[in-house]
Amino acid sequence: MPLSTAAHDALAGVLGDRLSTSESQLDLHGRDESSLPPCRPDAVAFPESTAEVSAVLAACHAHDVPVVPFAVGSSLEGQVLPTHGGVSLDMNRMARILEIDDRALDARVQPGVTKDGLNAVLRERGLFFAVDPGADATIGGMAATGASGTMTVRYGTIRENVLALEVVLADGTVIRTGSRARKSSAGYDLTHLFLGSEGTLGVITELVVRVHGLPEHAAAARVSFPTVRAAADTAIAIVQSGIPIARCELLDGPQMEAVNRFSGLDEPAVPTLFLEFHGSEAGVQEQVAHVEALAQEFEGGAFRWTIKAEERSRLWKARHDVYFSLLAYRPGCRSLTTDVCVPVSRLADCIEETSADIAESLPFPAPIVGHVADGNFHCGLLLNPGDPEERRLATEFSARLVARALAMGGTCTGEHGIGLGKQRYLTPQFGAEAVAVMRTLKDALDPRGIMNPGKLLPEG
Amino acid sequence: MPLSTAAHDALAGVLGDRLSTSESQLDLHGRDESSLPPCRPDAVAFPESTAEVSAVLAACHAHDVPVVPFAVGSSLEGQVLPTHGGVSLDMNRMARILEIDDRALDARVQPGVTKDGLNAVLRERGLFFAVDPGADATIGGMAATGASGTMTVRYGTIRENVLALEVVLADGTVIRTGSRARKSSAGYDLTHLFLGSEGTLGVITELVVRVHGLPEHAAAARVSFPTVRAAADTAIAIVQSGIPIARCELLDGPQMEAVNRFSGLDEPAVPTLFLEFHGSEAGVQEQVAHVEALAQEFEGGAFRWTIKAEERSRLWKARHDVYFSLLAYRPGCRSLTTDVCVPVSRLADCIEETSADIAESLPFPAPIVGHVADGNFHCGLLLNPGDPEERRLATEFSARLVARALAMGGTCTGEHGIGLGKQRYLTPQFGAEAVAVMRTLKDALDPRGIMNPGKLLPEG
Repeated sequence: MPLSTAAHDALAGVLGDRLSTSESQLDLHGRDESSLPPCRPDAVAFPESTAEVSAVLAACHAHDVPVVPFAVGSSLEGQVLPTHGGVSLDMNRMARILEIDDRALDARVQPGVTKDGLNAVLRERGLFFAVDPGADATIGGMAATGASGTMTVRYGTIRENVLALEVVLADGTVIRTGSRARKSSAGYDLTHLFLGSEGTLGVITELVVRVHGLPEHAAAARVSFPTVRAAADTAIAIVQSGIPIARCELLDGPQMEAVNRFSGLDEPAVPTLFLEFHGSEAGVQEQVAHVEALAQEFEGGAFRWTIKAEERSRLWKARHDVYFSLLAYRPGCRSLTTDVCVPVSRLADCIEETSADIAESLPFPAPIVGHVADGNFHCGLLLNPGDPEERRLATEFSARLVARALAMGGTCTGEHGIGLGKQRYLTPQFGAEAVAVMRTLKDALDPRGIMNPGKLLPEG
Repeated sequence: MPLSTAAHDALAGVLGDRLSTSESQLDLHGRDESSLPPCRPDAVAFPESTAEVSAVLAACHAHDVPVVPFAVGSSLEGQVLPTHGGVSLDMNRMARILEIDDRALDARVQPGVTKDGLNAVLRERGLFFAVDPGADATIGGMAATGASGTMTVRYGTIRENVLALEVVLADGTVIRTGSRARKSSAGYDLTHLFLGSEGTLGVITELVVRVHGLPEHAAAARVSFPTVRAAADTAIAIVQSGIPIARCELLDGPQMEAVNRFSGLDEPAVPTLFLEFHGSEAGVQEQVAHVEALAQEFEGGAFRWTIKAEERSRLWKARHDVYFSLLAYRPGCRSLTTDVCVPVSRLADCIEETSADIAESLPFPAPIVGHVADGNFHCGLLLNPGDPEERRLATEFSARLVARALAMGGTCTGEHGIGLGKQRYLTPQFGAEAVAVMRTLKDALDPRGIMNPGKLLPEG
């Protein structure tokens, strides 16, 4: 359904030819990295400033037009799909790094800056941004999704790495949610209200993020285990010992087999931890020795480690190849990725039960990769997307996995968000009363329901 | 004004003789650690369970009775003062530690558990709770205030140390805001909405908090500097170097003089950093050596440090004595404590300008102590509380200090909260639009305005 003439004219008045209804743009803004069916917006807006975003939202508010923020389209649960039509708000032209303060260790950026783009600039100044999801997502998209990634155990998720936001509300009002102070007890925490809200409460137009000094030294290591439990217990022991590990990733046996096949490697196809250490030279060596001793306690195999940059890449190659190894493992498949997170004390239980469930109930492979020091792991369900029976089995498996995680005190999503794909789990996780509070907040801040309608909250 | 008979009967029906209107209880629940005038509630309720809190709130909601959560009364901005009368909800009987998971490193507690009480139990299991404000506050009070303290630089504020809350809303509805997972992208972040909301959105009745393994080794150190700037620059260099310092506290010259006088010490009355290091034995030694070298770069004096427990206490004695040293410094005075926090890159500027302002404008002492690695510092304004001129000068000074911090990108309160005392700064800090959003949230969750009325938000 095209926009009304009045709405179109109002938006074109703000954006001129940066309002597009070309077929190719509508197609480009109608898909993401989920396996959900694509759907097209009525128009695509390319704002270049906060003032333009504000004017676009005011116009959409006046004309009851849905607004769906979009950037690189790397969402995994359909967050950017314009299921209710309306305007796809493409934030890629708001991609400037506005300020970097080396001494305060923060940076002010526009939402369209990507993680790798920011890091390329920071690296020259001896700094880095520590939230590291799989995709080269935008900082704005990561903030809207509540993303995290491989370095969470040491540096936190996006929630701990955003100090303040500028947000445009549904009616075009512009607010600032915080300050550049490292901590504050002033007023309600609006910053965290918008982090993870998936564009349903407003549009993020600027962020102040924390950055870190590049570590003096880094080491990488890899160690195999006879069981997933042994690997998970090692991860728990590392965290309990207070070792400031920078990365601690688990690949299970099937995932190692997928990587072997993809990369022509000949690693043991058993549960394997991939580790990274940051610190001073002596500190890194001490961490490595400590972790090696812990791994041996849990029957870890040969502990291979290095501080040399190119060898680090080689040691971690299997981890880096996970995504493409999955797609190659079953040609023509699509990977549907689960995302539960449980208290680390229940991680081994959860992975063991899940592996048994995979073996028992799925006719297709579902390798596991986990940010295990956080209790978060993903199964890559390698579906034939054209086979309804496989889709049914995958859906049922996902529901059992979420129920298992919730029973263990966990969450249905550690880092991918709710979007369209996980709405059915929100009430089981929080209870109807808490979900009703979320709906109250949504209705209070977006009374006309134009902000990314149909996402995050289950239909009333 | 006493409660209506109907309200009193409804509450007594829930609580029996745990609803008190005795003079002594009304007095006890009408003051806190601020210098604001005391005021009494109409009654004091002593609930013993979430169900009782829910029934009390439902009754208060039905009868339009204000509810003010209370515990040890250590708030510094009047948060627990029942300025609109009503019921003071005393949470001290909900003080059980419900569960500790050594492997997941979390604990489930009731809100009336105090920080020291929790740590006494955790210590036996080799664990500790890392949020460390000056008072032995309750965990519930710390969560409601958005508290932090001396170990924030390493372990975070209360906001990073609470995983989930149980909250009773104004009408008695009970919700759970999160899970025990370390991270989650599921739904709006209700946990952070209630953290720091000062009892104005609901009553916290249970918390899941993060705990940490006791450090293997600890060291304490002290080093003097010729100027506040040199001390602050050292703190910045420590943070920039990624040294995982556990505590980094600054006492300025006047504060050192106050401590000398109080404790009969003879330390140089110059800006001094008090440091604490946690880690492995080698790690601690390396941190100490690194920080000593940094301090020398900034003209630090003799670097005294130790790993022995009793010597650590002696080295840190001046820091521990700050509070009582202030009260003794000017007999009969009351200490009015400021609480700004700025980006660390502006900390030296902010303290320097503030010291000059003190020297120029205040006829009474105002020593400075700061959690400088976070950019947070306090001036202890040693007022004669009976002298209106001194109060006026203190108020004007505080306003200038906040304006200075805000101009530097900071906040009017790093850890003490808004309460009654800082409402006038909320709009200057956030802007009218963001404060309007806060008011929208308040109205949506507490439409009758019974939850701690008159706090946090400036009068509409």
